Amino acid sequence: MEKNIVKPSTLPGFMELLPREQILFNKILDIIKKNYEKFGFLPIDTPVIEKAEILLAKGGGETEQQIYRFEKGDTDLALRFDLTVPLARYVAEHFSELNFPFRRYQIGKVYRGGERAQRGGRFREFYQCDIDIIGNGKLDIINDAEIPSIIYSIFEELNFGPPFTIKINNRKVLRGFFQSLDIIDSTEVLRTIDKLEKIGLNNVEKELESQDIEKVKIGKILEFIQIEGNNEEKLQQLKNLNINNEIFIEGLKELEAVNEYISFFGVPSENYMIDLTIARGLDYYTGTVYETFLDDYPNLGSICSGGRYDNLAEYYTRQSLPGVGISIGLTRLFYQLNEANLINAGGDDSLTKVVIIPMEDCIEKSLEVASELRRNGINTQVYAEQGKMGKKIRLCG
Amino acid sequence: MEKNIVKPSTLPGFMELLPREQILFNKILDIIKKNYEKFGFLPIDTPVIEKAEILLAKGGGETEQQIYRFEKGDTDLALRFDLTVPLARYVAEHFSELNFPFRRYQIGKVYRGGERAQRGGRFREFYQCDIDIIGNGKLDIINDAEIPSIIYSIFEELNFGPPFTIKINNRKVLRGFFQSLDIIDSTEVLRTIDKLEKIGLNNVEKELESQDIEKVKIGKILEFIQIEGNNEEKLQQLKNLNINNEIFIEGLKELEAVNEYISFFGVPSENYMIDLTIARGLDYYTGTVYETFLDDYPNLGSICSGGRYDNLAEYYTRQSLPGVGISIGLTRLFYQLNEANLINAGGDDSLTKVVIIPMEDCIEKSLEVASELRRNGINTQVYAEQGKMGKKIRLCG
Repeated sequence: MEKNIVKPSTLPGFMELLPREQILFNKILDIIKKNYEKFGFLPIDTPVIEKAEILLAKGGGETEQQIYRFEKGDTDLALRFDLTVPLARYVAEHFSELNFPFRRYQIGKVYRGGERAQRGGRFREFYQCDIDIIGNGKLDIINDAEIPSIIYSIFEELNFGPPFTIKINNRKVLRGFFQSLDIIDSTEVLRTIDKLEKIGLNNVEKELESQDIEKVKIGKILEFIQIEGNNEEKLQQLKNLNINNEIFIEGLKELEAVNEYISFFGVPSENYMIDLTIARGLDYYTGTVYETFLDDYPNLGSICSGGRYDNLAEYYTRQSLPGVGISIGLTRLFYQLNEANLINAGGDDSLTKVVIIPMEDCIEKSLEVASELRRNGINTQVYAEQGKMGKKIRLCG
Repeated sequence: MEKNIVKPSTLPGFMELLPREQILFNKILDIIKKNYEKFGFLPIDTPVIEKAEILLAKGGGETEQQIYRFEKGDTDLALRFDLTVPLARYVAEHFSELNFPFRRYQIGKVYRGGERAQRGGRFREFYQCDIDIIGNGKLDIINDAEIPSIIYSIFEELNFGPPFTIKINNRKVLRGFFQSLDIIDSTEVLRTIDKLEKIGLNNVEKELESQDIEKVKIGKILEFIQIEGNNEEKLQQLKNLNINNEIFIEGLKELEAVNEYISFFGVPSENYMIDLTIARGLDYYTGTVYETFLDDYPNLGSICSGGRYDNLAEYYTRQSLPGVGISIGLTRLFYQLNEANLINAGGDDSLTKVVIIPMEDCIEKSLEVASELRRNGINTQVYAEQGKMGKKIRLCG
């Protein structure tokens, strides 16, 4: 009696690799992990499934559409869609058992089910590699300067080939600037500015016009986002604007401090720059923001982003928990680097260093040698199947 | 305006550790991974979510009750409940791109939602650490002997303290034995025998009586499972039974071969033994079976189990794919070892080796030293918060 065969396949939007690729993926993941630990971050591992009321505490349209949500028994469950919300819940729940500033890393899969088929690097299951530094009540600006040194350390070691640049800005500078123009709700404007690299100056101008902003103000905005020069020159030009707004002044002070400390952290000046157009789409960033680009591959978008936020866990605790962090979306990054042929180069794509093929009647000796090699830390496989020698050697290739 | 606070908590049956424990957990996980790689196993990483028709191809009562299943859009989805079914799907799907014997390891979370509250080490989300060796059409018995050497290598390095024993049996020996007694469907009998350690000889006898087995046969069964002595003596006694059953003879030959090869693989004789009562509850094992026990903690049950099966992927392909493998249920193991105080002993529970607390006006030098230490592979944290020195030092404790 023949069984019915179910056609073996995975769902669209779910990456699955062959072992050869998986080894490369894992090597990247290990480098990220090792560097996070090198900077004193501690690991946590939160459940993939949480109560829906926890994950949806903040609410918001896109999250509710994308989240995987279901019932089991009479419990309303959901799969985490990022590692930030679980971190917020974790810190609120274990507050009294943690030391602050709490430096944690977490590497794990998150889930976002979009409506459309996910192709071209949009994934429904993907790895995020996050670090965050959470302060209890306050958090020194020096932490904002440390983050780029961690990004630098990782991408220097990953060594994909093309040079990379960490772009830094401060949202207080932007917010204060807009306040000085009497643009109170700057969310829309920030979104537009954020697209400068993608859509160009003319289209930014058009979008701003469509937002009913006065011509003279648009002129000032365009002037502002075109401030050029090296980091010190940009900071000087910002000062020269003589904007008498408290938030602007505070942001400028922070940006200056970050710029000064970064060099102390040993990041070469060619690997970071102040970029006043970086705003990050997410509305919870309140101070420093980061994006990282491979200089020759701007189309990849930012490969490592993050920023400073005022209050991590406001939906779960009344404690004030400011923080700063970054996230590497590893699944998408791996997919894109692979497409751009930036991964295989020079990589060692096997974990096994020795394959022993026993000749007849020497199994015992072969196994002894294999054990000895393994005891010395050398990954060794014994190929013990019956068969012709030629076939065996081909299979081991 | 005060926000509503959602009480931060995790679901019952979902393990979440503090960083100090997480570091220990990760160390165990790394040792398992390193040993799997040492024996030439390749990593794969399959999606946590699969099509329900894939995961439920085999069907069966308990799986369908426990599985997390839900719809997104119009797709019927489920969370994997083990790593074996995804492996079967993976090998069937990527058959032409894999080398056989295919040696893969996978470490990941699996999901089983029981009806009852999960306490005392029963988890709804837990890590499995699996290896399997899959042959194309056939697979040499030497692979069955290699598996215990991998178990040995792992638990030797984990060094929990109490000695451990890998117990080995062969289901063909059992099946042939029962056939010789004209007990064709031995599933129930095997389940009963499997409980010998837990319920004792008398209760095994009672259970067998309740299964309507003749007195004389029960006598032979009890005699069989009480065969004693060292491995060679047990094998000799099995031979002496003079059972003229093909399957029994084949199983005995396999058990002898495994027993001989294991010593070649360098497993000390005190760490493994033939135990004719080991049957493994799961009905898909067809040959060699393994269980591993901490000698002084029999109540923990088997901490690493597995066996040989005839056909891995029969629901997804007509290819014949025999295999042999083991699984370590790490979440439960960690929980139990922790409860038994077998984990903390001697362990280094911090990843950070140096914390630098800059005095005033020496931030720059402090950060330089930190960078230098990190370049030399020493995990270093800079504690840069404002505050009194005494408080700082306490926080770093």
